[in-house]
Amino acid sequence: MQKTINSATLASEVIARCQKLARFSEDASGTRRTFLSPSMRDCHAEITKWLKAAGAEVSVDAAGNLRGFYSGAQPGVPRILIGSHLDTVPNAGAYDGILGVVIGVALLELLEGRKLPFGIEVIGFSEEEGVRFGVPFIGSRALTGTLDADLLSRHDKNGVSVEKAIRDFGLNPAEIPRAALRDDCLGYLEFHIEQGPVLENLNRPLAAVDAIVGQNRLEFIFTGRANHAGTTPMHLRHDALAAAAEWIVAVEDLAKKTPGLVATVGFVEAKPGAINVIAGEAHATLDLRHPSDSIRTQALDDLTRAAEARAAKRGVSVTWKTLLAQRAVPMDRFLVEQVERAILQAGCEPHRMASGAGHDAMILADKVPAAMIFLRTPGGISHDPAESVHLQDVASALECGMHLLEQLSSSQEFLTRTLRA
Amino acid sequence: MQKTINSATLASEVIARCQKLARFSEDASGTRRTFLSPSMRDCHAEITKWLKAAGAEVSVDAAGNLRGFYSGAQPGVPRILIGSHLDTVPNAGAYDGILGVVIGVALLELLEGRKLPFGIEVIGFSEEEGVRFGVPFIGSRALTGTLDADLLSRHDKNGVSVEKAIRDFGLNPAEIPRAALRDDCLGYLEFHIEQGPVLENLNRPLAAVDAIVGQNRLEFIFTGRANHAGTTPMHLRHDALAAAAEWIVAVEDLAKKTPGLVATVGFVEAKPGAINVIAGEAHATLDLRHPSDSIRTQALDDLTRAAEARAAKRGVSVTWKTLLAQRAVPMDRFLVEQVERAILQAGCEPHRMASGAGHDAMILADKVPAAMIFLRTPGGISHDPAESVHLQDVASALECGMHLLEQLSSSQEFLTRTLRA
Repeated sequence: MQKTINSATLASEVIARCQKLARFSEDASGTRRTFLSPSMRDCHAEITKWLKAAGAEVSVDAAGNLRGFYSGAQPGVPRILIGSHLDTVPNAGAYDGILGVVIGVALLELLEGRKLPFGIEVIGFSEEEGVRFGVPFIGSRALTGTLDADLLSRHDKNGVSVEKAIRDFGLNPAEIPRAALRDDCLGYLEFHIEQGPVLENLNRPLAAVDAIVGQNRLEFIFTGRANHAGTTPMHLRHDALAAAAEWIVAVEDLAKKTPGLVATVGFVEAKPGAINVIAGEAHATLDLRHPSDSIRTQALDDLTRAAEARAAKRGVSVTWKTLLAQRAVPMDRFLVEQVERAILQAGCEPHRMASGAGHDAMILADKVPAAMIFLRTPGGISHDPAESVHLQDVASALECGMHLLEQLSSSQEFLTRTLRA
Repeated sequence: MQKTINSATLASEVIARCQKLARFSEDASGTRRTFLSPSMRDCHAEITKWLKAAGAEVSVDAAGNLRGFYSGAQPGVPRILIGSHLDTVPNAGAYDGILGVVIGVALLELLEGRKLPFGIEVIGFSEEEGVRFGVPFIGSRALTGTLDADLLSRHDKNGVSVEKAIRDFGLNPAEIPRAALRDDCLGYLEFHIEQGPVLENLNRPLAAVDAIVGQNRLEFIFTGRANHAGTTPMHLRHDALAAAAEWIVAVEDLAKKTPGLVATVGFVEAKPGAINVIAGEAHATLDLRHPSDSIRTQALDDLTRAAEARAAKRGVSVTWKTLLAQRAVPMDRFLVEQVERAILQAGCEPHRMASGAGHDAMILADKVPAAMIFLRTPGGISHDPAESVHLQDVASALECGMHLLEQLSSSQEFLTRTLRA
């Protein structure tokens, strides 16, 4: 594929655009751009200019997703989606989500008007982080038609409902069903920063994501007996925190010896929480993730039994409640192979890995073949103003993207796949 | 010693008096009676009636201690002190401290006017818990002349200074030095609830306390690196909470294998403290107590090295700061033996133990021979409205007290001891 636009030059433009979009913020002191906020409107206006200049028709669907359609070689040909999300966490960096949208726009520019056997819809999802209404993936769920029935009546901390927020943004909630994907969609591609240290540690710029890990989140409550730290001999204690602590060590041990498993206790609290009182109660959370659902389920079983054993030996009881249980989502095998090949074509050593975090691709995969391309994340730092990308990695991602479009354009296997929606 | 008042009947009066005093409270919903509060004045008035009826002269010293003097057989003979504290924690029980004062009054009553070769000063200390000004033992420190120079200028949460609180109570801060013990004091005896489960577990009503444990309180801060719980593989983590948790287990292990050592982590906090974020920082407190200073110091050394080792293996650093370091205080050997003998005389199996908590006796021991008698505490429960004592144990304590007075009255060794002050 001939290119008259230099992908290295465009890579610096991509970074500059991400940094520019980071200034559309609800906070003066940092980047915070939540679902349907005024700064999201400004962000849309800016990206719309770039999309139109690249030859796309732009619209905003009733769920607030920005959609730029670059038509295919003939009317009626199917389409592919390239995108990510435009909302951010509070005090965010400039690249999480946004980079995937800006790369989508840049790929249209690199086509320089040339048409492919499929249309390309660049999509900027309105909501992925779940900050404003406590519900993530509102944007991508509108495309898959899997929004909760009671979503419209949820309220943000200012008492504004989702329904009112949509209307205030100039949209009509009744039209959300029209945001859903039609049966003309061949696949979904999402470029995203890795948000972890794996690629940096391997010294590779790009990875093909083969699965989004399944995940459990639980809260464990250990109940012993609060007592005076000075007057209660060790053999007469029922120390809830000691039980929890030994279990936290067991969580780390199991994850260290189980390849691919990550298990984290990120929150712990002892009650009453006084220096001179034995803890009568200890709360600890568990975050457990693995690309294999059976390994994850087995690990969860092992860890609940470990909690019971650590508690029982101290005359402590333990209960737990599930806050989240989410199956692993495999990416489309054909697309993952094509991504790997495109990474190689771009001159990089490909790496295949699971995503430890959820992404819009996880939602889209329910309806269309999906794949993700991870970009190395310096220091593994994300959700922080220090979040960054290497210029050369962005250039490689653009090269990879163009090779991928070329590969897909010439693949009869891809172009003739049975469409779902 | 002949008694016309039945000690079982008086035991139920002692309990009734403690319950009555519990109603002199700053809080309508429970017992809270802090240093120099209006409810302390009412409490003094009530106890004064009982003391006067028992033949004591009553005064309140400039530190707010209630002092009832029951004179000896001749003018100028030395005195012994019997007492404990009258202040309480918030939401207190009826016996912690108060019981020791009320037993002192009851012992005077049991004397029925009979004079001993020493006077008896029953003392109700004004302040032991440290609730109002954040400084404990104000009452007993006035007797030993060891109050901090800057105490008078300390403020409570309402901005009232100690000096003003003393004046508001109708006392003169300039006269605090006159509260100090003179050189006529043979010893200090304190009856107190055990506040622990040891006697209940041994099925014994009373114990002779042979030492107040030495104590360290520290805060440990483990510093690792906060990271995404999903995207950071186990081998690339620096999990501060995992390090702290393994150390908490080491704290429990060391205490379990070191006789007499109690070690407690009662507070822990992970930062940022989110379910899906690896802890970048973990704070944990340590409360460490033992009657032997050398064993305690060795344990502290072992535990700081354990913290360093648990941190280092995860690329985590650890620092600590000392919040309290207090040497063990041995009780007077002669008095402890006399207490044991008196317990036996009262028909009970004596037990000798260290006090895991601080008491006024710890302060007094600096100046006069001191000993304590612990009463079994049902369920080990104290600092709680459910705090209680068994009627029979109080009767045994009164019997023990009378035997003790008899033994001391007839002991030339005791009566001719060199006096300090």
